[in-house]
Amino acid sequence: MFSSLWVSEQYKNTALSFKVKEILFSKQSKFQKVEIIDTYDWGRIMMLDGMMMVTEKDEFFYHETISHLPMALLKDVKKTLVIGGGDGGTIRELAKYPSVEKIDLVEIDDVVVKASKKCLPELSTAFSDERVSMFFEDAAEFIKNAEAESYDLIIVDSSDPEGFAECLIGTDFYHSIKKALTENGLFISQSSSPLSQTEDFKKTWRNLNFIFPYNEIAWSLIPTYPGAFWSFVLASKSEIKKELAHDFVPENCKFWKPEMLQALLCRPNYIASLIQ
Amino acid sequence: MFSSLWVSEQYKNTALSFKVKEILFSKQSKFQKVEIIDTYDWGRIMMLDGMMMVTEKDEFFYHETISHLPMALLKDVKKTLVIGGGDGGTIRELAKYPSVEKIDLVEIDDVVVKASKKCLPELSTAFSDERVSMFFEDAAEFIKNAEAESYDLIIVDSSDPEGFAECLIGTDFYHSIKKALTENGLFISQSSSPLSQTEDFKKTWRNLNFIFPYNEIAWSLIPTYPGAFWSFVLASKSEIKKELAHDFVPENCKFWKPEMLQALLCRPNYIASLIQ
Repeated sequence: MFSSLWVSEQYKNTALSFKVKEILFSKQSKFQKVEIIDTYDWGRIMMLDGMMMVTEKDEFFYHETISHLPMALLKDVKKTLVIGGGDGGTIRELAKYPSVEKIDLVEIDDVVVKASKKCLPELSTAFSDERVSMFFEDAAEFIKNAEAESYDLIIVDSSDPEGFAECLIGTDFYHSIKKALTENGLFISQSSSPLSQTEDFKKTWRNLNFIFPYNEIAWSLIPTYPGAFWSFVLASKSEIKKELAHDFVPENCKFWKPEMLQALLCRPNYIASLIQ
Repeated sequence: MFSSLWVSEQYKNTALSFKVKEILFSKQSKFQKVEIIDTYDWGRIMMLDGMMMVTEKDEFFYHETISHLPMALLKDVKKTLVIGGGDGGTIRELAKYPSVEKIDLVEIDDVVVKASKKCLPELSTAFSDERVSMFFEDAAEFIKNAEAESYDLIIVDSSDPEGFAECLIGTDFYHSIKKALTENGLFISQSSSPLSQTEDFKKTWRNLNFIFPYNEIAWSLIPTYPGAFWSFVLASKSEIKKELAHDFVPENCKFWKPEMLQALLCRPNYIASLIQ
């Protein structure tokens, strides 16, 4: 236990800092610095290259939105792919659906998965689910080589579009995603904060619209991400009907309820004005 | 312009810090230290005793939720009362409704209003609205002496329930509010973060339930408040029907849309589990 150690993430001219209990994991992988730090207010947090990826206390907002929102729009999802997401939070949520037969996870950095398994027990519950297959490789290559129409749902659960993650908002990548999606399948990606990462958000939306005929935007809140007001983009080869496609309600959610769907998709004017 | 000055709010073991451009206003009033600081990322911010009250960049989440959410549930609101809210953001939103004939603002500290008029032009637009009357006095006294059934909507837009604001979550205060509300009238109050101010939230809810027969909880996000996941409590002497009472849509909103209503009132399990 430390008496006065703090961990800070500075993003542009804003910093968020937590008082630290203990440093649980710290390793330089081939790709990034992976750290797990126990804090007083936010539980254990995972940082990648000094950026907060997940805190135990607020991770449910992110993971429930990125999984249950698209799942609410789809019927009988069987085959799913998660890109990034090595902490395990997103596959934990997908594993709640009995209809899901296949959850492929493509994470470039196996150290992220190791750190989560070791230190984040509430996030890493689904790694042992028999429907889950893990691929530690480059997602752009993986999706380029994926079979056509092989996934009903593809989720990009990545860090900010910088460095090795930058290609995950490129048109080549989106083209491969489109090919790999079933005809009525959905793609969803976290797409930065419209409040504090306006340019990343706009670029993601522009590139997506260049490739997909049908696109939507959802908002949510992620308390410990810069700006807290967060966006997710959705895309499909078929029209995206903004309504519940079924009445299955996933268990043990802290934030998500089916009543959220209309609101999270209603595109507040703050977001609409950015993409006019 | 400063080159390396930062302003920080520390709440428990979490701190949020902004890089400072300029200090625009700093005065010790009879009640608190009132400061307005221009920042690089969040525009001008108002701090009271070192706590962030408002930033120009994200104030719309708070002010639109606390006003348009109850207004969406009410028909033909004529008489309104705002307690606190000396920055002017809440009365700016209420002034958007043609049906509203009366907006009383009870703010204990006239220095807050002066600072806002001087430095926060986007927040202070409604002070000159002829429907607005300002009362610089103690809200608990004001409401105790208010005529019975004199307001259709009462909004408590206050700082955290500490110091002179602590009485604003007390049962005596709620009893006076109840008396001052019309039969179908609504009361709404910001009620802390269920994520980081659990005890304040629970106490507010408990006291409110002790006095009012009908109560609801809404959530919203306030990026620069501790925890960002925020709560608002609603109360009435009559049943609160969770549906739009009219189709008037206020102009120039950045966050609020009528589609938000169901979601913000759906009581996520994280909140529901706190008050079981």
